[in-house]
Amino acid sequence: MENFVAFNPTSLHFGRHILEGLAPTVRQYGDRVLLVYGRGSVKRSGLYDRILRSLKEAELALFEYGGIQPNPVIEDVEAAAAVGREHHVEVVLAVGGGSVIDSAKAIALTIPVSHPAWDFFTGKTTPTKGLPLITVLTLAATGSEMNSIAVISNKEAYYKAPLRSPFAFPKHSFLDPEVTTTVPRDYTAYGVADLIAHCMEVWFGAGDCPMSDRLVLSIIKEAMEAGPLLLTDLRNYDLRSRIMYAATLALNGLTTQGKVSGDWCVHVVGHVLSLLYDVPHGASLTIVYPAWMHFFKDQIGERIALLGSEMFEERLNVDEAISRIENFFIALGCPAKFRDLDIPNLSVDDILEAMEIGKVNGMHLKLKPADYPKLVEMFL
Amino acid sequence: MENFVAFNPTSLHFGRHILEGLAPTVRQYGDRVLLVYGRGSVKRSGLYDRILRSLKEAELALFEYGGIQPNPVIEDVEAAAAVGREHHVEVVLAVGGGSVIDSAKAIALTIPVSHPAWDFFTGKTTPTKGLPLITVLTLAATGSEMNSIAVISNKEAYYKAPLRSPFAFPKHSFLDPEVTTTVPRDYTAYGVADLIAHCMEVWFGAGDCPMSDRLVLSIIKEAMEAGPLLLTDLRNYDLRSRIMYAATLALNGLTTQGKVSGDWCVHVVGHVLSLLYDVPHGASLTIVYPAWMHFFKDQIGERIALLGSEMFEERLNVDEAISRIENFFIALGCPAKFRDLDIPNLSVDDILEAMEIGKVNGMHLKLKPADYPKLVEMFL
Repeated sequence: MENFVAFNPTSLHFGRHILEGLAPTVRQYGDRVLLVYGRGSVKRSGLYDRILRSLKEAELALFEYGGIQPNPVIEDVEAAAAVGREHHVEVVLAVGGGSVIDSAKAIALTIPVSHPAWDFFTGKTTPTKGLPLITVLTLAATGSEMNSIAVISNKEAYYKAPLRSPFAFPKHSFLDPEVTTTVPRDYTAYGVADLIAHCMEVWFGAGDCPMSDRLVLSIIKEAMEAGPLLLTDLRNYDLRSRIMYAATLALNGLTTQGKVSGDWCVHVVGHVLSLLYDVPHGASLTIVYPAWMHFFKDQIGERIALLGSEMFEERLNVDEAISRIENFFIALGCPAKFRDLDIPNLSVDDILEAMEIGKVNGMHLKLKPADYPKLVEMFL
Repeated sequence: MENFVAFNPTSLHFGRHILEGLAPTVRQYGDRVLLVYGRGSVKRSGLYDRILRSLKEAELALFEYGGIQPNPVIEDVEAAAAVGREHHVEVVLAVGGGSVIDSAKAIALTIPVSHPAWDFFTGKTTPTKGLPLITVLTLAATGSEMNSIAVISNKEAYYKAPLRSPFAFPKHSFLDPEVTTTVPRDYTAYGVADLIAHCMEVWFGAGDCPMSDRLVLSIIKEAMEAGPLLLTDLRNYDLRSRIMYAATLALNGLTTQGKVSGDWCVHVVGHVLSLLYDVPHGASLTIVYPAWMHFFKDQIGERIALLGSEMFEERLNVDEAISRIENFFIALGCPAKFRDLDIPNLSVDDILEAMEIGKVNGMHLKLKPADYPKLVEMFL
């Protein structure tokens, strides 16, 4: 077991009617609020109106930045931070999924500084403070609601980059599973796949921690039980709540404690696909994971076989394990190959170039640039 | 799944050489430190000297309160708080097991107030602040290092009472498994039993949350694997680290999320035994649990059988499950009946009286005072 420091200061408010506590909580941090949201689903669902009403009743001054893209871009972060600065906001409120929350983290860090937001992502500067951030989660998937990570694309720099800072933790996150009952089938499936992929990244990471393995398997098994049921019953509150909670646990730091790190190569490759072709994040992971496991099966065959055997509760060899995991993702409704997405103007050269610029690699199992064409070939 | 709020602000520093960070961390909170410890094991092990040296090198002003009892009493809390007030300490540093840390929580809450510490335990007043508390854990068992609970005895009031307050969370807890390699066999076993019992209290609690069940079983299975191995190899760092981490996870709030509550009746009965006869906490739980399960088996037979079946990976009926769990505790070296402890001057009347004064009951499964004699009879 490896040394670790566990620290997670986010207050997670989970359950029915939990949004009743939102306005009083926001108020504790200030009267001037920057509301950040995406491209309209929160308006269509009525959530936007509900939240606006409760904040206005609490006499908070509201400023808005809507239109965050599903694969969030640095331009929106800069533009939203400018709005926040102009109106001297004291607190940032994100209403949306991982893209909105990731953006809001970067916005809350950028408002108090005078340099470009992207400097945080290149490592040119390190955050030393941030406005308080409160989130309302509308999509169970990324775990961003209870971690200190933000992933943002810079299309100009050809790079989707992660930022991690203790100042990026939300102060409070509000998770009402009811809010997610209107998420369509495909994005529900991508969310389930995403949370399972987060667990797999930890499973395949560096370091040996039996407790981490047990926690990872617990979360995967919960998603494997509740996920397929949910996809046949999208409005089921209890199943929504189980997936929403599992997604938070899958990436709130818990599973990595006692390990050196996760691997995260599949995520980095997935980020390249999302950067270039707006592939939904969860879908990018189900495309890359089977290929990645085949690519590394000579090195980690036993570990792959053990994961599959535990997931499906029967003894599987490595190829059976990969095939069963791939088929599980397919049964959820996720793509298994890039070609399943029907993307026009696909360019392998563009993918390889972006992988080189992004220095795609795992934190545990190492890829050389010379390996990229083979890996890409395997998931195309 | 039930509504919940998850909040745990403690920074957990876990692993080898982690104590190198202690003095700089203490320093962040002040220069005047109240060091709280127990009855000498920290001096015998050399830990006291090591910590004292590092704090003095950091030029911190140190004041001490040693001699906290294994079943901590309110008199020590008051006396230590008086020392802290007299010297205007700014931070409390606890070095010890659950008893010392529980006491230090109450001390840190009591120093800034002018009323008796016991008022917090009776509910007469509620904490609204506390001095910052930092802990160095020397015994893997109670989970106190990462929760907001303190349990203290008041022998005069004939009552061992819990306090829970958001102001009672340690700011930082330092867990070096190496420090625990000198814990003797019996207390090591009680620690393993204690952490398993914490999981069982949640398993038998109110509310239905499959994720909680999975987490509970993960922690129990980790303890069942590492615990018996550790008892044959007490100086094994890796096994110590696994038990230490499992004990923290067993009572840091994680497992209860999504449930209404744990049950905790067995703990409350155990507290009565510890109050009257200084029974080690973990031992009190292994005495009471089998009796409690037999007492309630008509109501929760399936739940008991499921727990046993999961723990031992074979289908068991309720009586087999209870018997296997009891035998597991016995194999660890824990008592299964009160008479195994050879306590002189045992008085059933005293036990029943203390149970009545303490209004012993579960948070889920209800006991009437008329039930007490039968339950006591079953574990004597």
